[in-house]
This record gives sequence, C-alpha cells and structure tokens, in this order.
Amino acid sequence: MPDLPESLSLYLVTDAPDRCRLGLLDTVVAAVEGGVSLVQYRTVHAHKGAAYAEAQALRALLAVRRVPLLVNDHIDLALAVDADGAHIGRRDLPPQAARRLLGPGRWLGLSTNNLRQLEATDFSLLDYIGIGPIFPTGTKRDVSPVVGVEKLACLVARSPCPVVAIGGITLGVAASVRAAGVAGLAVASAICGAVNPAAAARALRRVG
Amino acid sequence: MPDLPESLSLYLVTDAPDRCRLGLLDTVVAAVEGGVSLVQYRTVHAHKGAAYAEAQALRALLAVRRVPLLVNDHIDLALAVDADGAHIGRRDLPPQAARRLLGPGRWLGLSTNNLRQLEATDFSLLDYIGIGPIFPTGTKRDVSPVVGVEKLACLVARSPCPVVAIGGITLGVAASVRAAGVAGLAVASAICGAVNPAAAARALRRVG
Repeated sequence: MPDLPESLSLYLVTDAPDRCRLGLLDTVVAAVEGGVSLVQYRTVHAHKGAAYAEAQALRALLAVRRVPLLVNDHIDLALAVDADGAHIGRRDLPPQAARRLLGPGRWLGLSTNNLRQLEATDFSLLDYIGIGPIFPTGTKRDVSPVVGVEKLACLVARSPCPVVAIGGITLGVAASVRAAGVAGLAVASAICGAVNPAAAARALRRVG
Repeated sequence: MPDLPESLSLYLVTDAPDRCRLGLLDTVVAAVEGGVSLVQYRTVHAHKGAAYAEAQALRALLAVRRVPLLVNDHIDLALAVDADGAHIGRRDLPPQAARRLLGPGRWLGLSTNNLRQLEATDFSLLDYIGIGPIFPTGTKRDVSPVVGVEKLACLVARSPCPVVAIGGITLGVAASVRAAGVAGLAVASAICGAVNPAAAARALRRVG
C-alpha cells in the first residue's frame, strides 16, 4: 500500500448506498479509476452483519487496486475485514481505546473541528486528522460549526500530523481548500452523487 | 469469575436507560444484589463514546462484585472495556469474525430463534446460545417469531451448549421456562422496569 500522506490526497468517504447513483461498489470502483487514493467506509446500516458484508466487498476490490480502506467508527469492523485503519469522530471510542484495539500497524484518524480540540489531541495516537466541516454539508447530520478555509489554514499550520479537509467540498472550492496546505481532500457526495464518479474524481484530482 | 453455565442462571440484559426506573447503574447494582449472575450491556446510544463510558462504569461496578459482563453486538466495545465476552445476534458480525476478534478467552453467545438456525450453528465458536423470544416482548423491536416453552424444550434438547431463554420472561412464567431445561433466564424489563430491581431479581432467582 502507498504511504500516508500520499494516500490522503483524494479521500473518498462512502455515502449512503441510496445516495450513490451507481450503487456503492460501482461508485467506489469508478472513483478509484478516477484517482481516489483512499476509501473510508462509513456505514449507515443498523446491523453490523450487513456492514460487514459490504466492507468485505470493498476490501476485496480495493486490495487488488492497492487503495487503502479505512472504516469509520467501528473498530471491530475494521479489524474483521483487515482494513488499513479506522477513522473516529469525537463521539466514537476515544483515540486511546481505538489505538489499543487497532495496534500500531493500522492508521487512525480523528475528526477535529476547532483549535480547542486540536490542542487537546494526543497526536502520538494518530496518523492524521480530518478537519471539518469546511463548508455546510448535507451528507452528515449532527455536525459541528463550519470551519471555513481561513481557519482551516490556521489549524493546518498548528497540526503536527497530516490534515484531510472534509465537509461540503466540491470542485468549485477544491483549489482554495488545497491552498490551505492540507494533505488531502475528503469528499462524499461530490463523487458518490455524481453521474460519472470517475470523471468527478479525475477533476478533483487535477486541482492542486 | 464464576464459570459458565453457572453465570447464565439469571442473566440481565440492560434496558434503555429511560426504561430503567432507577437509572442504568443503580438498576444493575440492585439487580446484582438481588442475585443477577451476569450482565449483558445492550446499548441504545447512537454514539459509541457514550456507550464506552457507560460500559466502563458497568465494568468497574461488576468487577468488584465478581459478576461477568458481556457486551451486545459491539465487539470493539467488549474489547475496549475488557468485558468477559460478547453476545451477537443473527444480524451482527458473524460468529467466525466475532470469535476471531474476541480470542479464545472470552465468552461468545449467539441469538437463536429456531431449529434451522440451531442446526446451522458452528458451536465450536460459541459458549452458549440465547433462544428467544420465548414470549412476546416490548423490549426489542424487530424480533423473530415467538418460540414458546414447548419448542424451547425441543431446542434445548438439541443444543450441544448451554441455553439462555430470553424474551418476555416474567416471574409468572419463569418456572415453566426453567422447566424446559435451560441454563438460565435472561430478562430485561422484568428487572430494569421494576420499582425494586433487587426484589425482582431475588424472586426470579428463587424460581427453579
């Protein structure tokens, strides 16, 4: 697998299957063809068995393409499908617990919204942080205040580890987000909701 | 910790906090005072951080009382709080994956509703099975068909591992369920919803 932060460059967060125009798996295949460098599987299934089957399918199709897979929130699912790591939010298992379960060999990312959170973070536990939402987003309910690109640049400058920007990132704003100094752009609907996810990924990849 | 199947004898499944008259932790303390021999933590929290805090609190109060703790569904949570094991349903991670993550030293139980499921079960992965719902229950939505005590007795006779009966078990029917040959009774609302959970547990404990 490629290294971080290279893998963070165009970071796809899977949207709910009904929001993927091509369906989840075909969307991911197309997105990777278009240049997505990492996939975070975020499940909306209430039952972990269905999520496990989906994550296994993603694992198989990404492994042959040498694209890393992270699993959102569910460390058990990440371990069960031998994912490359996990991403946790501030309301998930705390980073200490997540790192202990994952071991040292898998990546761990943590959502961060503001300077207070950033300064309270134990970066020795993490491989990267996701900062957002940069812009308003309809993908995730129950999100933190919008960060904006100026504050993003300040946070990036103070982060000792690579940063992925997330939340409301579209092609139109991608260059301004890249200019904040991030290692990568994380997108969900801009690729999953596209008629042509490969083209959408390719266009985002060309920015910066 | 005591052994299985002794621990299965009076098996408390935690109800939603707002359905525990004394609150979750005080309910569990009282239930253990009354003779509950094992606690399965079933969370209703959407965020695993809150569930983790709750499970840690349960772990601490049960450890000093030498009462085993299992965690429902979330193997990561079970490992993170060093629980004695986990219980999974038919829609959770499959038993193979759950056992791999738990290792050989923790208990694993699997929900079972009928003979077809029982006959398809790989018992080498499991320490016990939970059969139910024996009676109609309001605790859990989205449940399987009611088993009843006659069919329960047939399933118990064919199970190579200890059986806990679950679903709608009240004091009034406890003796008939025990008579089916189970290792234990699993209850949620009959204890969590009681004005006096200790007395409710004590009364259930006296049956059989």
